[in-house]
Amino acid sequence: MIPAPFLLYLGHSSDSVGIKTSRGLATFRPEDCVGEFRSIDCPLTLGLPRLTMEAAVLAGARTMVVGISNAGGTMNAEVIIDAAAALEAGMNVAAGLHQRLRDIPELVEIAVRRGLLLIDVRDPPGNLEVGNGRPRAGHRLLTVGTDCSVGKMYASLALVSAMQKRGIVADFRATGQTGMLIAGEGIPLDAVIADFISGAIERLAPSRYDDGWDVIEGQGSLFHPSFAGVSTGLLHGAQPEAIVLCHDPARAEMRGLPGRALPSLDRCLTANLDVARLTSPHVRAVGICLNTSTFSEPAAHDQCARTADSLGLPCTDPFRFGVDSILDYMSCIEPSQRVTSASS
Amino acid sequence: MIPAPFLLYLGHSSDSVGIKTSRGLATFRPEDCVGEFRSIDCPLTLGLPRLTMEAAVLAGARTMVVGISNAGGTMNAEVIIDAAAALEAGMNVAAGLHQRLRDIPELVEIAVRRGLLLIDVRDPPGNLEVGNGRPRAGHRLLTVGTDCSVGKMYASLALVSAMQKRGIVADFRATGQTGMLIAGEGIPLDAVIADFISGAIERLAPSRYDDGWDVIEGQGSLFHPSFAGVSTGLLHGAQPEAIVLCHDPARAEMRGLPGRALPSLDRCLTANLDVARLTSPHVRAVGICLNTSTFSEPAAHDQCARTADSLGLPCTDPFRFGVDSILDYMSCIEPSQRVTSASS
Repeated sequence: MIPAPFLLYLGHSSDSVGIKTSRGLATFRPEDCVGEFRSIDCPLTLGLPRLTMEAAVLAGARTMVVGISNAGGTMNAEVIIDAAAALEAGMNVAAGLHQRLRDIPELVEIAVRRGLLLIDVRDPPGNLEVGNGRPRAGHRLLTVGTDCSVGKMYASLALVSAMQKRGIVADFRATGQTGMLIAGEGIPLDAVIADFISGAIERLAPSRYDDGWDVIEGQGSLFHPSFAGVSTGLLHGAQPEAIVLCHDPARAEMRGLPGRALPSLDRCLTANLDVARLTSPHVRAVGICLNTSTFSEPAAHDQCARTADSLGLPCTDPFRFGVDSILDYMSCIEPSQRVTSASS
Repeated sequence: MIPAPFLLYLGHSSDSVGIKTSRGLATFRPEDCVGEFRSIDCPLTLGLPRLTMEAAVLAGARTMVVGISNAGGTMNAEVIIDAAAALEAGMNVAAGLHQRLRDIPELVEIAVRRGLLLIDVRDPPGNLEVGNGRPRAGHRLLTVGTDCSVGKMYASLALVSAMQKRGIVADFRATGQTGMLIAGEGIPLDAVIADFISGAIERLAPSRYDDGWDVIEGQGSLFHPSFAGVSTGLLHGAQPEAIVLCHDPARAEMRGLPGRALPSLDRCLTANLDVARLTSPHVRAVGICLNTSTFSEPAAHDQCARTADSLGLPCTDPFRFGVDSILDYMSCIEPSQRVTSASS
C-alpha cells in the first residue's frame, strides 16, 4: 500500500497523543521504520534515530509518513514546508488527514516533477451503501472508549495477536488512519459520508462462517460531542457480539474539550451496550482495557484490580499485562450465549 | 438559489414517501411550481397539472427538480434519460441525491451545450469544523423521529410559521435536501463527512442573542440502524432546549428495513433526551407530532388525545390540527427552565 521503509514525521508536535499515528507504526511495524523527523522545538521522541530528510533517504527510507493528527485534520504551513522538503529529498509522502496532500498544489508540483507519490490514506471507498442492520454470521468484537485516543486500536491489535497465539482465527479491522497504515487496509470511518457510517462497517466486517473473529477498531466515544455520531454508527454497523471498553485513567477531561469530564466506566459501558443492542440484542461486555502508562507498576495492578471488581469484568493494561484475562473470560461464556446474531 | 418556477419530477416512482422532496415543494412553495412530470407507470400525483417537458417550458418552468429520494441516493438510467430530456427542452435540472448530476457526463455535455445549470443541492460547505459542544446562547428546538420520513421537516416548518404568527422570531434551519430547496439555504447533513456532523449543526444554528428560535429539522432516528449516527451528531450539535418527537402511527416497520419494528414513543423520547443531555443538560420534550393522514378525522383526534395522555405532552397532527397546542405548552414552561444552555 505504501512503499516502506518509513521516516516517521513528528514535526513540531508537543502533544504526545497527537503523534499517535507515528507511534503506532513505530510500535507495530518497527521493522519498517528507519527513523523519526522532528523539529528543533519538538520535545517528543519515539526512541528511533533522529534523521534529517537527506539522512533518512541514505538510510533507505522510501516514504515519509506524516503521522500526526489534530481535530479537523488540516495541515499547517510548517507541515507543508516539511512535506515539500521530504519530496525534494526523494521520498514519497503519506498522510491521513482530512486535508489531502493532493489538494496542495505546491506538493503536487514537486511530486510530479520528481516522480514521487502523494498518498492520502483517509480516502474511503467510493461505492459504500447505507447500512441495513440485518443479522449476519460471524464473531465480532468492537473496542469502544470513554474518549478519543484512549487505546482502542492498541487493545484491538493486542486482542488479535493474543487470539492468534491461541489458535483462534482473528482479523484486525482498521477504521482509522493509524490502524490502516499498520494493517495495510481498512476504512477511514471518520472520512466517510455521514449516511454511510454503519454501512461502511458492514462492508468492513461482512458475514463470516469460519468461526473466526473480526476485531473492529473503535472510534471516538458516545460521550464525545464532536464524534459520537461516528461512534454510534460504528456500534450499529459492527453488530458486535462482544465489547471491550478502553479508558485512560489519567485523562482529566475529554480530548480537545477543556472542562468536559469523562463519563464513568459504568455509565459508558451501559450506554454502549444500549446502543449496540439495536443491531446485536445479545451483545456482552467482555473486558476493560486501561492505559496505565503514567502509573507505577503496583499502582497499575491496583487500578486494574479495583476496576475489575467494581464492574465484574476482567480489566487489564494490554501493553503491560496482555489481554489473556479477557480471552479467558470470553472462553468461559457459554457457546449458546456466544452465538448471537449469527443464529438469527 | 435555484431558478424558479419549477417542474416537479415524480418520474416512475410508486413510493409516496420517496417523492417527498417534490411534495415538499408543492406544499411549501406552491407559487413556484407550474406542474408535475410523471411517467405512464407512475400512480402518484401532487395534484398539479401533468406536463410534458415541452409543455412545462411553455408554462414558464425554468428548472426541473428531481424531487425523489431513495436510500443510497443514486440515479437510475430512467432518471438520467428524463433529466437529459429536460435539459434538451431548455430547463435547468436540480437534484439532491448523493450521486451528483455533474458526475454524469451525458448530462454535463447537454448542459454545457445548451448553457443550462446542473444544480446539486446535496453539497455541504467545504470548510466545516468538528463540533465542540460548548454551551451557546439562543433558543433551539429540534424535531426528532421514531423513523426516517415521519414528518420532521413538516413539523419544523409548521412550528416556525406558528411562532412567527405569534410574533416570535423564528428561523427554519434545513438539514435535508427538501428543506434546503424550500428554505433556499441549509446544510445537507447526511452528505457531510462523518467527523463533522455535530460541527455542521453548530455552524447551521450558531449562538443567537435576539431571543429568537432556531427550529432545526431533524434527520433519521436513533433507532434506525442505517442513520442513527447522523441523528446522534445532530442531537449533540443542535444543543436543543426543546425537542418535538415526530411519528407516523401507520408505519408498520422501519423505512427500508422490512421486519424491523419502530420503537415505542416513550422509549424513543427517553433515548433522544438522554443523548441530547450530553450538550444540553436541561433539554425538555415539548410535544409530539403525528402524521395521521391515513386516519379519519375522529380517529386522528382520538390518536392524538391518547398519545398526549400517555406521554403527558401535547400531541397534534401539524397538518390537520396545527401546532398551537405545542406553543401553548412551551409558553407555560417557566422562563428559568427555558433559558438553559444560553445562561451558561
